[in-house]
Amino acid sequence: MTAASPSTPLRVALAGLGTVGAGVLALLQRNLPLIARRAGRPIIVTAVSARDRQRDRGVAIADLAWEDDATALASRPDVDAVVELIGGADGPALTLARAAMAAAKPFVTANKAMMAHHGLELATAAEQAGVPLKFEAAVAGGIPIIKGLREGAAANSIAAVHGILNGTCNYILSRMERDALEFSDVLADAQALGFAEADPSFDIDGVDAAHKLAILSAIAFGSKPDFAAVAIHGIRPVRLVDIHQAAALGYRIRLVGHAEQAAAKLLQRVQPVLVPLAHPLAAVKGPLNAVVAEADHAGRLIFMGAGAGAGPTASAVVADLMDVARGERGPAFAMPVAQLVAMAPADPSERQARHYLRLRVADRPGVLAEVAALLRDSGVSIERLNQPAPDADGSVHLMIVTHLVAEWAAGAAPGARGGRRAVLAPPLIMPIMEEEQFA
Amino acid sequence: MTAASPSTPLRVALAGLGTVGAGVLALLQRNLPLIARRAGRPIIVTAVSARDRQRDRGVAIADLAWEDDATALASRPDVDAVVELIGGADGPALTLARAAMAAAKPFVTANKAMMAHHGLELATAAEQAGVPLKFEAAVAGGIPIIKGLREGAAANSIAAVHGILNGTCNYILSRMERDALEFSDVLADAQALGFAEADPSFDIDGVDAAHKLAILSAIAFGSKPDFAAVAIHGIRPVRLVDIHQAAALGYRIRLVGHAEQAAAKLLQRVQPVLVPLAHPLAAVKGPLNAVVAEADHAGRLIFMGAGAGAGPTASAVVADLMDVARGERGPAFAMPVAQLVAMAPADPSERQARHYLRLRVADRPGVLAEVAALLRDSGVSIERLNQPAPDADGSVHLMIVTHLVAEWAAGAAPGARGGRRAVLAPPLIMPIMEEEQFA
Repeated sequence: MTAASPSTPLRVALAGLGTVGAGVLALLQRNLPLIARRAGRPIIVTAVSARDRQRDRGVAIADLAWEDDATALASRPDVDAVVELIGGADGPALTLARAAMAAAKPFVTANKAMMAHHGLELATAAEQAGVPLKFEAAVAGGIPIIKGLREGAAANSIAAVHGILNGTCNYILSRMERDALEFSDVLADAQALGFAEADPSFDIDGVDAAHKLAILSAIAFGSKPDFAAVAIHGIRPVRLVDIHQAAALGYRIRLVGHAEQAAAKLLQRVQPVLVPLAHPLAAVKGPLNAVVAEADHAGRLIFMGAGAGAGPTASAVVADLMDVARGERGPAFAMPVAQLVAMAPADPSERQARHYLRLRVADRPGVLAEVAALLRDSGVSIERLNQPAPDADGSVHLMIVTHLVAEWAAGAAPGARGGRRAVLAPPLIMPIMEEEQFA
Repeated sequence: MTAASPSTPLRVALAGLGTVGAGVLALLQRNLPLIARRAGRPIIVTAVSARDRQRDRGVAIADLAWEDDATALASRPDVDAVVELIGGADGPALTLARAAMAAAKPFVTANKAMMAHHGLELATAAEQAGVPLKFEAAVAGGIPIIKGLREGAAANSIAAVHGILNGTCNYILSRMERDALEFSDVLADAQALGFAEADPSFDIDGVDAAHKLAILSAIAFGSKPDFAAVAIHGIRPVRLVDIHQAAALGYRIRLVGHAEQAAAKLLQRVQPVLVPLAHPLAAVKGPLNAVVAEADHAGRLIFMGAGAGAGPTASAVVADLMDVARGERGPAFAMPVAQLVAMAPADPSERQARHYLRLRVADRPGVLAEVAALLRDSGVSIERLNQPAPDADGSVHLMIVTHLVAEWAAGAAPGARGGRRAVLAPPLIMPIMEEEQFA
């Protein structure tokens, strides 16, 4: 890539013309003069590829070159940079990424699954080709969190990153809380409103958030992206009764992606967590995203905004293209691949925290005493205990807040010696996030 | 500036060794290997200048070259980039900035006053010299908000920026609220704790926040920085009774820097504002800062963190140096000076909003009817009115929430025909920020 004169446009190929692809086209058209002023040169789309050439997308593509095979975009002489919005960890997206590197073309993607699984390979190829590989849109939509950590907080050693990284889950949890609805009712509603996919499992089971967390971890800690090491728990087991109980204790339940360095190991986890009301993540409602980074010099940095949608995602894609247009070509994961460390994964279940437990217990005299004894004998100390009135279906729950204890111990206790008779189902366990008030 | 080989250190001169200067030295020493991994080359300080060479700053400077005159740093052959941490809009800081440009050395500063007053001149000089001029630390301390707007949100047209830009004011307002204390008591406490200067007027009268707002505006709107056009009101007139009344109505009082584009004009204002509890700025407590940008594609972006202090400010200074080390040299205000527009200032008092008014009124029968009639006759419609019990000193206050009205009208009404007899002092007027709940 040679330095272009200020008036030379950056010519972009767009692979994938779904909601986000159409959003990128619309944004580039709408803000063309502003983008040229800020990027130092215009950014124009010259070629596109998608499944169906005829579909009406609300933006004109008749004047653009068309390729049935996205891979062909990378080798076109009228293309300076390739944008991938196809999705999927493998398949045509990955083929295109490799083709762009082979053709030494800058590559911009919103593909978190591909970056979580193949980010290291692609970063290596980008370095060898001497071209930028950029993926701001892959994490937290329109929030410039990749840039914020990679450059804004670059002087800091980061101790931990916490994030609300999936807008679907946050929408569901917020709606359950606000409207006192059960998970399944809100999910159906979210699907009808377009906040959740027909097959919502990637979102609600935490996989999507885990992809994003693996990418964030690599940038925050200078470690090799390690998606396989993320411990993942989704929000399916969370019930309205948990949300009510958490609220009574002064918490909100959020699906939190959490990564921290501890004793040269890297802990990565996606899990529903009790967040204290005073913590900034508790204020994140609806389909928003947020990332909190604990930095050794900057202190706590908080970034919030829209985590998905055509406009926000397009904003992040075009910001990356503007960096490319300006000639920015630093390493994908903030430092050269050779400098990234392979950090041993920490076992999240060893982490000490106060925990929230919900146990479904038998409806007979003496159960409370049995459970209390089980916990005592397992060394799990109880800070609070509550037994609300039985559910509509007659099932009886015990909610327990433990003192500091490893998660495995809190979870194992109810199943210990004889516990199976008192406790009717595997317990729901959620860690409690602690928060200091301002001084 | 020619491209340096990866192992060539960036050699930095530091002018000013107060809290922040010592913080930069400490950060560069502590995180040296990490910074080199991320910046692609080490960053080292080679020369310093300050008032007193002998003072103990907790960091060793004996090995560094010393200049009594900071200006001399710019022309040293062992200096690649100059960091200015002297402070002050003019004087030695400005002299050094001009010297750095004349010597074609990249220049990094934390000086908001200088950038607000002389930013355009310096940006022009930097462009002519072909060197970067960077000032992340000048706005909101450790929060990477300059980068966030200049690059992260670069694809967006920004409609408005709201910020809590002065940690001292936010600390004072938060403490008044939390501990039910009067302004003067908290100010004395803040001075004792080091959160406020011995002469606090730059902070509490809103000048510091206005400097930062003028810089943010230029970057957000592509306009020439125009500090003179910022309407400035500080927090001195805010009393505990206002904070209580605001809380009863569902608001917190915050000193908000607000800039918006309206009909090709630019409104810039620093003023105490009633912020609804659901708005992210209401959650900003203690000495924190936050900036909210309303972007046309990304939507609402929120950045929060520490707005001052040695660590956070050093974090921002070193992030700028790392950009310099990587070869980043885009224009200071996101686009070339020739592209910046001189926007006509909008008159903030014309802005329509609901307003909070506190009137000190005479303690005699019929005053309430007189004030109500005055407001009615001036076309100011009352949404709520409250007359709390008289103060300890016997003074009687009326608190009024108006319907939508221009600020000048709300303010003028109590002084209109005969109002002087009923209203004993100029009213305190604060606009009320509106907030939509998530859908």
